[in-house]
Amino acid sequence: MNGTQFERLARQVDFIVEIDRLKTVLRQTLLTDKSRRENSAEHSWHLAVMAVVLAEYAAVDIDVARVVKMVLVHDIVEVDCGDVFIYDEAGNVGKAARESAAAERIFGLLPEDQATELIALWREFEARETPESRFAAALDRFQPLLHNCRTQGAAWQAHGITADRVRARNSHIGAGSPALWELAQRMIADAVAKGHLAPEPTPNA
Amino acid sequence: MNGTQFERLARQVDFIVEIDRLKTVLRQTLLTDKSRRENSAEHSWHLAVMAVVLAEYAAVDIDVARVVKMVLVHDIVEVDCGDVFIYDEAGNVGKAARESAAAERIFGLLPEDQATELIALWREFEARETPESRFAAALDRFQPLLHNCRTQGAAWQAHGITADRVRARNSHIGAGSPALWELAQRMIADAVAKGHLAPEPTPNA
Repeated sequence: MNGTQFERLARQVDFIVEIDRLKTVLRQTLLTDKSRRENSAEHSWHLAVMAVVLAEYAAVDIDVARVVKMVLVHDIVEVDCGDVFIYDEAGNVGKAARESAAAERIFGLLPEDQATELIALWREFEARETPESRFAAALDRFQPLLHNCRTQGAAWQAHGITADRVRARNSHIGAGSPALWELAQRMIADAVAKGHLAPEPTPNA
Repeated sequence: MNGTQFERLARQVDFIVEIDRLKTVLRQTLLTDKSRRENSAEHSWHLAVMAVVLAEYAAVDIDVARVVKMVLVHDIVEVDCGDVFIYDEAGNVGKAARESAAAERIFGLLPEDQATELIALWREFEARETPESRFAAALDRFQPLLHNCRTQGAAWQAHGITADRVRARNSHIGAGSPALWELAQRMIADAVAKGHLAPEPTPNA
């Protein structure tokens, strides 16, 4: 490698080291063995494998490799911003602007061509306007739902989340994957039936 | 979904839940902030992002999407077998047979078409005979080397690993990526110069 090549590689390595911090960003979701909270790096891995295995359920034909790449980078902004629980309404105020600045900083560590590409891919994920981003978003909602169902509703109960809010927050699964939304609705009904998820807020609570 | 479709999806979901256990399989490598050991799920995520960012350094033209898929599933056998430190010679005896059985069991949870495909992809990774698997293997060796260098040689020192063994165990990086092997050799020399990695075993030790 000559000096220019080495400088390019050094920037890429800096980015690779920087994103290691995503392994320390904790989500509200528990692992299915309930041993601890999940981190955003291993969550991203899980989604990427799910994209491979569940691609056939996308609402329309998708470029699977593009979905995989999208879910691999979709949470990298959390290195700067942390994970905000989707039911945390106050925490979600101003989130878009904070995450946008984080995307510029973190992907900006890369050579310009790659920074531009990955920032665009992250923005596409956030906008949910393409078939790939809708399917990626469906996976990103389906996975914590699955973890909640396999942990007897642990995260829902810890935060007093009820079925009406779970349905409202997850209904866009249907835009990316009607089949996964059909399954998700069965899972939510089953969690309510088992007493792992309260059907609605208690009156006067 | 009809009954057959639902049964197929149920098998895929069982697989997705099963591989959640990879998040609890610990490697010898520390996170770069030294806060804890890395797990194999987040390691797989890191390699997948590296495949995207470093693809240009593959020895020959590769199918990047295929490399990404390969590194996403390369460690799933560890759900049954655990991670064996590459410098643990006793632990590596019989490893291939144990991992092969694990691949059959875990990928076998999937519908047959997907099980066949992912077992073949895992075997390709293990055999290191194709450009994609050589590049994937290069990433799988380069990443822990990078973590060791960014943690002042913590895992090397904990296990008394010396530079001669690091060079021997990592030299196949060159088959997948001459550029990454060039950088790796610089990093190893630098770690020795800084006293983070002993150059060779102490005489009479």
